[in-house]
Amino acid sequence: MSPVAAAGQDTRPHAGQQRSDVTAGPIDPPARLLMGPGPITVHPRVLQAMSAQLTGQFDPFMASTMAEVQHLYRRVFDTDNEATLLVDGTSRAGIEAALVSLVEPGDRVLVPRFGRFGHLLVEIAERCGAEVHAIDVPWGQVFAPEAIEEAVRRVRPKVLAIVHGDTSTTVAQPLDRLGEICREHDVLLYCDTTASLGGNEFRTDAWGLDAVTAGLQKCLGGPSGSAPITLSARAVEVIEGRKSIEAGIRAEGDPVRENRIRSNYFDLGQILDYWGPERLNHHTEAATMLYSARECARILLEEGVDEAVARHRLHGDAMLAGVQGLGLTPFGDLRHRMTNVMGVEIPAGVLGDAVRAELLQDYGIEIGTSFGPLHGRVWRIGVMGYNARRDAVLTTLAALEAVLRRHGVGVPSGGGTEAALDAYRAAA
Amino acid sequence: MSPVAAAGQDTRPHAGQQRSDVTAGPIDPPARLLMGPGPITVHPRVLQAMSAQLTGQFDPFMASTMAEVQHLYRRVFDTDNEATLLVDGTSRAGIEAALVSLVEPGDRVLVPRFGRFGHLLVEIAERCGAEVHAIDVPWGQVFAPEAIEEAVRRVRPKVLAIVHGDTSTTVAQPLDRLGEICREHDVLLYCDTTASLGGNEFRTDAWGLDAVTAGLQKCLGGPSGSAPITLSARAVEVIEGRKSIEAGIRAEGDPVRENRIRSNYFDLGQILDYWGPERLNHHTEAATMLYSARECARILLEEGVDEAVARHRLHGDAMLAGVQGLGLTPFGDLRHRMTNVMGVEIPAGVLGDAVRAELLQDYGIEIGTSFGPLHGRVWRIGVMGYNARRDAVLTTLAALEAVLRRHGVGVPSGGGTEAALDAYRAAA
Repeated sequence: MSPVAAAGQDTRPHAGQQRSDVTAGPIDPPARLLMGPGPITVHPRVLQAMSAQLTGQFDPFMASTMAEVQHLYRRVFDTDNEATLLVDGTSRAGIEAALVSLVEPGDRVLVPRFGRFGHLLVEIAERCGAEVHAIDVPWGQVFAPEAIEEAVRRVRPKVLAIVHGDTSTTVAQPLDRLGEICREHDVLLYCDTTASLGGNEFRTDAWGLDAVTAGLQKCLGGPSGSAPITLSARAVEVIEGRKSIEAGIRAEGDPVRENRIRSNYFDLGQILDYWGPERLNHHTEAATMLYSARECARILLEEGVDEAVARHRLHGDAMLAGVQGLGLTPFGDLRHRMTNVMGVEIPAGVLGDAVRAELLQDYGIEIGTSFGPLHGRVWRIGVMGYNARRDAVLTTLAALEAVLRRHGVGVPSGGGTEAALDAYRAAA
Repeated sequence: MSPVAAAGQDTRPHAGQQRSDVTAGPIDPPARLLMGPGPITVHPRVLQAMSAQLTGQFDPFMASTMAEVQHLYRRVFDTDNEATLLVDGTSRAGIEAALVSLVEPGDRVLVPRFGRFGHLLVEIAERCGAEVHAIDVPWGQVFAPEAIEEAVRRVRPKVLAIVHGDTSTTVAQPLDRLGEICREHDVLLYCDTTASLGGNEFRTDAWGLDAVTAGLQKCLGGPSGSAPITLSARAVEVIEGRKSIEAGIRAEGDPVRENRIRSNYFDLGQILDYWGPERLNHHTEAATMLYSARECARILLEEGVDEAVARHRLHGDAMLAGVQGLGLTPFGDLRHRMTNVMGVEIPAGVLGDAVRAELLQDYGIEIGTSFGPLHGRVWRIGVMGYNARRDAVLTTLAALEAVLRRHGVGVPSGGGTEAALDAYRAAA
């Protein structure tokens, strides 16, 4: 811990004082193996890409780099959508940009909710002024498409907003039937794929999705801070119908619409103009995060998306076998489990947070806790992105065994690593 | 230009194809000396800091690093405000976070507007649902405090929102009288200091400012993508009165207020809880940009804020002398000019954009154009952050002379560099 934080007092010296006063040293993070629900350890190539120097935001190099990123993310999202780009913020910035740009005050939004991030969609849609209707299943389960269709018929929403993989419960909602349901009822289909993209099968066009947002900090192996997004022609049409060019760069005759989007920063109509051939000034693109997003996509596409999904399944299955080999019980409906993160029930009598703290302090390994009804009941172990690797899985299982034993849990010696090695052998 | 962008066609292959299909190579920006209105060349130490590895977002290291950043930015902003932190987005994300968190629909907001970024404040405040009143001076001038006080008396706003240095006109509004005016009339004073902070004198507490936002990509020598913000106790009180803990992590009994902030991502009440001792989950902190902001502040405070302002003035004055030595006319009221960026009138008959393109292509040097009424009339030359250096000033002047001569402008040989060298000698 640095002197600043360790001092435990806040003297807050003012500007203009002497250099001896600067106590914070160069950034020097401790070594960590991040095996929680994300963020996870960043791929070293992404770290390198982020130290590349800037050019001006209207430099030909920036224009071509932004076009490359659009091209790369069309492949990541598996879409032909022209409107594929980045929102400059964390993954929830992407969610809010999609919802505030599509939803007008008073619009009905339907949210099938199966975890913490479904609650977040409700929260954001409400703040957009929507009339929000939620349906629920117990945490750990997913919806049958029929249940969603019934709710669509009943609510007749403008937008159906749903999470793909919800890390809070570690299950993924099947989406392949929802597109046709939404088209039949003239509903826009938005999906948050932050936690699943790149590690679980995902088909924007084949599944008929109208708006999809993501983040870099899960299976894509980057840091938080950039939100890839793709929009169908239907979604773009809705957004174009609300677009207003901003004061200060508006020409005579450019309309200011009554139904103008309630955010400037998240106005996807303006952001599309900034990314489009007009390059109309909006924000100043966060070039470092653009470089980061670009390298994440390059790494994924070099491996192949299908191959990356198979790798997540392989190492996720090995971790699951290992956890069960330690005598622990996985949480949730395993038929729908995300490849990249699993819930593990905390054994009775064990202090879940103490185990996590010991794993971190003694082994440098981070696993997660969960939210709401699952807090204190479930650990979350991530096997994703750069850390969807054999050595990361086996190291985590060996350390977990050692810590559990010290906490009095009767774990079989080598039960985790042996079971994982068996799983690898069976898959080979 | 990469093969992707050069191909001029969009085949958009789908995911899962072979690695031979990945055409984008490693990120490799061309060498540039960025002497426009920003972003400018990033300090090499900041680039290095951004390649540091992540820890988990609730790791003790993250907690201490976030506390350090708060401590460092209190000194950058010259404030005692406890509520000093980062918004995860570009500088306009900081503006929107401040306004949407302070302004409720129907509230009156007064914007004294002296350039393009005053228009942006109007735009954002309107989208927050405010009743916005703007007053104007011709571009290139600033307001007398009496004119602002008169408007405050007339409009009786909840919030006075004003830009400090507006890069579109390259002048800085004196702020030192506005705090007392606002307190006398019980008005909250918000200031956008994106373009000026770290290169121009700035005193949050001494000037009585209630909310101040910035970016890294100007005098602080970082990239766009993180928005430092500081809030007075008065501002925090207003925000706390609107705070609602979000669905999914809300406990029984936590209120959902009628006047809840209309954005989740920009809800400064929630962001304060995330940065505060509760570490209540909100977004996932963009750690790379946190490291970046931290290094920017360290560099500034090692030099000393007053010393950095003096350096900007020294090199800005030398550039001004050089531009005048080339026979060019500076734009705007020089008594109020920003230290770090200047407007230069484009000589009659000269194609401003062609000169800029030639500077970029032949010399790797970028200068800027301007917006609205000044487009095609004024160039903008920045001397800021890492590029507020003697070699950057002299190189730019030598290249500008060469390009202007090829465009038929009768520039005196060595007129720019000699005048700048004389200015340096006089200041020594």
